[in-house]
Amino acid sequence: MSSDERMEECLGWAARDPSGFLSPYKFSRRVVGSDDVSVKITHCGVCYADVAWTRDKLGGFGGSKYPLVPGHEIVGIVKEVGSNAQGFKVGDHVGVGTLVNSCRDCEYCNMYMDVYCSKGVVRTFSSVDVDGTITKGGYSTFIVVHQRYCSRIPDVYPLALAAPLLCAGITVYSPMMRHKMNEPGKSLGVIGLGGLGHLAVKFGKAFGLSVTVFSTSLSKKDEALNKLGADGFVISSDEEQMKAMAKSLDFIIDTASGDHPFDPYMSLLKTGGTLVLVGVPTQVKLSPISLISGMKSISGSATGGIKERQEMVDFCAAHRIYPDVEIIPIQYINEALERLIKGDVKYRFVIDIENSLK
Amino acid sequence: MSSDERMEECLGWAARDPSGFLSPYKFSRRVVGSDDVSVKITHCGVCYADVAWTRDKLGGFGGSKYPLVPGHEIVGIVKEVGSNAQGFKVGDHVGVGTLVNSCRDCEYCNMYMDVYCSKGVVRTFSSVDVDGTITKGGYSTFIVVHQRYCSRIPDVYPLALAAPLLCAGITVYSPMMRHKMNEPGKSLGVIGLGGLGHLAVKFGKAFGLSVTVFSTSLSKKDEALNKLGADGFVISSDEEQMKAMAKSLDFIIDTASGDHPFDPYMSLLKTGGTLVLVGVPTQVKLSPISLISGMKSISGSATGGIKERQEMVDFCAAHRIYPDVEIIPIQYINEALERLIKGDVKYRFVIDIENSLK
Repeated sequence: MSSDERMEECLGWAARDPSGFLSPYKFSRRVVGSDDVSVKITHCGVCYADVAWTRDKLGGFGGSKYPLVPGHEIVGIVKEVGSNAQGFKVGDHVGVGTLVNSCRDCEYCNMYMDVYCSKGVVRTFSSVDVDGTITKGGYSTFIVVHQRYCSRIPDVYPLALAAPLLCAGITVYSPMMRHKMNEPGKSLGVIGLGGLGHLAVKFGKAFGLSVTVFSTSLSKKDEALNKLGADGFVISSDEEQMKAMAKSLDFIIDTASGDHPFDPYMSLLKTGGTLVLVGVPTQVKLSPISLISGMKSISGSATGGIKERQEMVDFCAAHRIYPDVEIIPIQYINEALERLIKGDVKYRFVIDIENSLK
Repeated sequence: MSSDERMEECLGWAARDPSGFLSPYKFSRRVVGSDDVSVKITHCGVCYADVAWTRDKLGGFGGSKYPLVPGHEIVGIVKEVGSNAQGFKVGDHVGVGTLVNSCRDCEYCNMYMDVYCSKGVVRTFSSVDVDGTITKGGYSTFIVVHQRYCSRIPDVYPLALAAPLLCAGITVYSPMMRHKMNEPGKSLGVIGLGGLGHLAVKFGKAFGLSVTVFSTSLSKKDEALNKLGADGFVISSDEEQMKAMAKSLDFIIDTASGDHPFDPYMSLLKTGGTLVLVGVPTQVKLSPISLISGMKSISGSATGGIKERQEMVDFCAAHRIYPDVEIIPIQYINEALERLIKGDVKYRFVIDIENSLK
């Protein structure tokens, strides 16, 4: 039996070139290894990374590898387990996020912070796996993955709503926990109200924080205050509103991927405060005085660890925190990506893989 | 008796305009209040701030107020104490640093972090004091100051060498302590080998760290390794040397005030590492990926608290850490400031006020 014959055929949607246009694509996945689980994908969230990778806008990571099947907010149902994959059984609800392999032996992997693996992480798509194959993401009918990279989704948690937790959710949860922003009474600023931002607001309120949303668009005010429960809403271009917030925030999560000035936001932080960058603008540019005069910091954060990801999923289930999603069929994905670029989604597209990809 | 008659005449050197040229200048200081001490100044260190303020290059702080008597690395001998200033007695050796007043009542002052006073700190020179007078610094024969802002200098510690501790010393010590860089075995990078940088190296070695100096000038290599005891020396423009240091440092202290790229230094930090800015370039500019991909931070720090400043002075005395200084008469100050701009000093000018200003 050749290795090819041992592969299993999978149906997905792929971009073929930097136009990023997605269309149906057949490929093979490895058979289930002893530590693997095979997951029938029911839903996949649509992350801005899917735009960036399908259009080859992330040169810094080695470039996009076509055909490229995106998607790293994957949820589904275990359909097969390897002989050693005793953490899961057929029928379990699971999620797979932004990574599918790592060395599992370095100091970061040993802390279950595989995303910072010393030897480099294998991303869920467009990444070279240890066997030399190019990984393919969740815009597909199933995925085979080492059990370590699966999170358990409680049965009570709707699978469609769980998808955005696997990237957007952990990306805002991880820096909030690391900077002790789960302590009631603290004040949180959230820049940008998209997939990440709306979850930061929900976590903030669940943690008992005072949450202020910063947006360029007045159209989001009503939703921010009345639907998401934010305590304040500020149009970032309004100098008076910004001035009134000076030195009032313990922490800011900056989810904006568009370029914007940083100094005005730094002035809103209390002494010792931190702005954490989870969006990816083209550049970070600010006055050194913005950092020096108040012992302030700008930090970055990339998703989070697989252990804390499980904690986050369980926290969401326990506190009934659900992302707001717009469920779409895979056939709508090209329009959806265009709308995502324009910020025209409340707040995360989730592809109904199970019912539309056949 | 009018308030003027109650003032005491003081001789200093002042800049009269943004040329920054310094010349003798007579002015008055307040009489000793109940909480004050009056300090006969023996020495004053020459900080880069003295250049920036005398030449009015710090518009962001309200502009320079002429005539401007600079100097905020002040040491001397107590010559008079107020009725409540029981912390000191005549003859004590003391130091005064970058601040001479604060509200003494806010959350930061209550933590003895007056430098971050909510109501704004009164700087040692060119600042408006609570009585409306403009503060005048240590290029002068004596200073009257609330005892809270004095540090005790142990008698065994040479006064001339103590001066640079009051600004340069605390500026590097404070962020090192805050970021737990006093734990032996950690790895420290020091950018720039001037007044601040050479003290960062000395503290690093005293704490048991592995210290690497980054400089643009090969001429500093021998001193860095053989005199200051650094473990490594890297020419920052040498890409090979920089590459060899990738992900090797826990912490970087950036003392450079000239503009330089940040991304190459961020790549030297381990995951979760921090670069702390204590120099003042015109701008901080970097790729967000430099922060995001390794959970890294850029922070700022401004001198430090008055309590930790005392700890630092005591630590220097206990561990025989002495700044390397070039002692000059006040008559040499204009040349000294020109040399300081060129980085031509090892490593701090200290003015022998006692013997040259009469």
